[in-house]
Amino acid sequence: MTTKPSKITLFGNRFSGHAYKIALFLALNKIPHNYEAINLSQPRGERPEFFRKHARYGEVPLLIVEDKAFVQSNAILLHLSQLFGIMSGGEEKARVNEWLMWEQSRLGSSLPNLRFEKKFKTNSDPAVQAWLKARLLDDLAVLNTHLTSGDGFVVGASPTIADCSLAGYLFWLSDVDLAISDWPHAQAWLNRIENLEGWKHPDKLMTQEKPV
Amino acid sequence: MTTKPSKITLFGNRFSGHAYKIALFLALNKIPHNYEAINLSQPRGERPEFFRKHARYGEVPLLIVEDKAFVQSNAILLHLSQLFGIMSGGEEKARVNEWLMWEQSRLGSSLPNLRFEKKFKTNSDPAVQAWLKARLLDDLAVLNTHLTSGDGFVVGASPTIADCSLAGYLFWLSDVDLAISDWPHAQAWLNRIENLEGWKHPDKLMTQEKPV
Repeated sequence: MTTKPSKITLFGNRFSGHAYKIALFLALNKIPHNYEAINLSQPRGERPEFFRKHARYGEVPLLIVEDKAFVQSNAILLHLSQLFGIMSGGEEKARVNEWLMWEQSRLGSSLPNLRFEKKFKTNSDPAVQAWLKARLLDDLAVLNTHLTSGDGFVVGASPTIADCSLAGYLFWLSDVDLAISDWPHAQAWLNRIENLEGWKHPDKLMTQEKPV
Repeated sequence: MTTKPSKITLFGNRFSGHAYKIALFLALNKIPHNYEAINLSQPRGERPEFFRKHARYGEVPLLIVEDKAFVQSNAILLHLSQLFGIMSGGEEKARVNEWLMWEQSRLGSSLPNLRFEKKFKTNSDPAVQAWLKARLLDDLAVLNTHLTSGDGFVVGASPTIADCSLAGYLFWLSDVDLAISDWPHAQAWLNRIENLEGWKHPDKLMTQEKPV
């Protein structure tokens, strides 16, 4: 473990599951930090100058550790797990990385994009929604099947950053008119996450100025 | 660097840019390996038993190192770069990870999905293609802008696994009726990759049984 950083600031938004992944990691591990809300309804060019300067892709989450900027939710999780020496999966690190990559391209893409189309976009195209929903149903089936034979969490018997990542948007599954109870192994796993000390629902965690 | 593994086998397909990323890494670094082609037009349940057993998500690339299986192209790149101690980005590892994650959710999703809709799918929906194309144009603009101020490669002055990843599908950009010359900084960067010793176009690299 490296020396613990003295100052961490998370720039997030309460509608972003990608930001929630980081807030969840910090909450579960009781890591003191500041939280700054970014208004995503503001045009990119009008967002705070500090945020625009450091968020390479213009998105939340942005994490500042001391004076260094980190972006991309799953890359931030990787960095934090290495920095603090926790939740990396240890010898199963390669498996954790595989699930982080799968999340980026599948569940962490299909679900937030469908949610955006349904909840936030005007004139969303039904064909696009159908395409995203078909992918999401595939993704939920893959995750549910994997968790059938799991040891409790996505990789092994303890939570890793893969759990923080994959759970990112799932507490909002009702926003796309689906119920996690249709995927009972995934539901049981989400319940295990909810029972971890420090867990909070994204609607609760992301509205606080200082979540810890 | 860990002891070099004596046996590496890549399971790929000549139409998969995700598999090409790994073939490219192995070719650029002159790493001896075997190559096994998987016929993706075969239904998943009929693919070779060994492949079905080890490819968790049923996809190429699958990499076998000694007797261990690794999946998800960018996770494989991460693993190989750590195993051989090369192309990791060194002190800029966090930046490399950010680009790997961005690739998974953006360019490495928009481009292969649009290519699949246009080149391989029957009855592809025009609205879905339009949605994917809009994302792809955003992604190409982001990459091109980033490369304006770069030192030659995506992270720093030497190629890293971020370059192998981001270039994965770009040599096939004409498959979606776009020309890389419209993004001149990205084009210059692709040219630099083409000039690296060992580089081959995916159409050449993936058709050989043993690319090295």
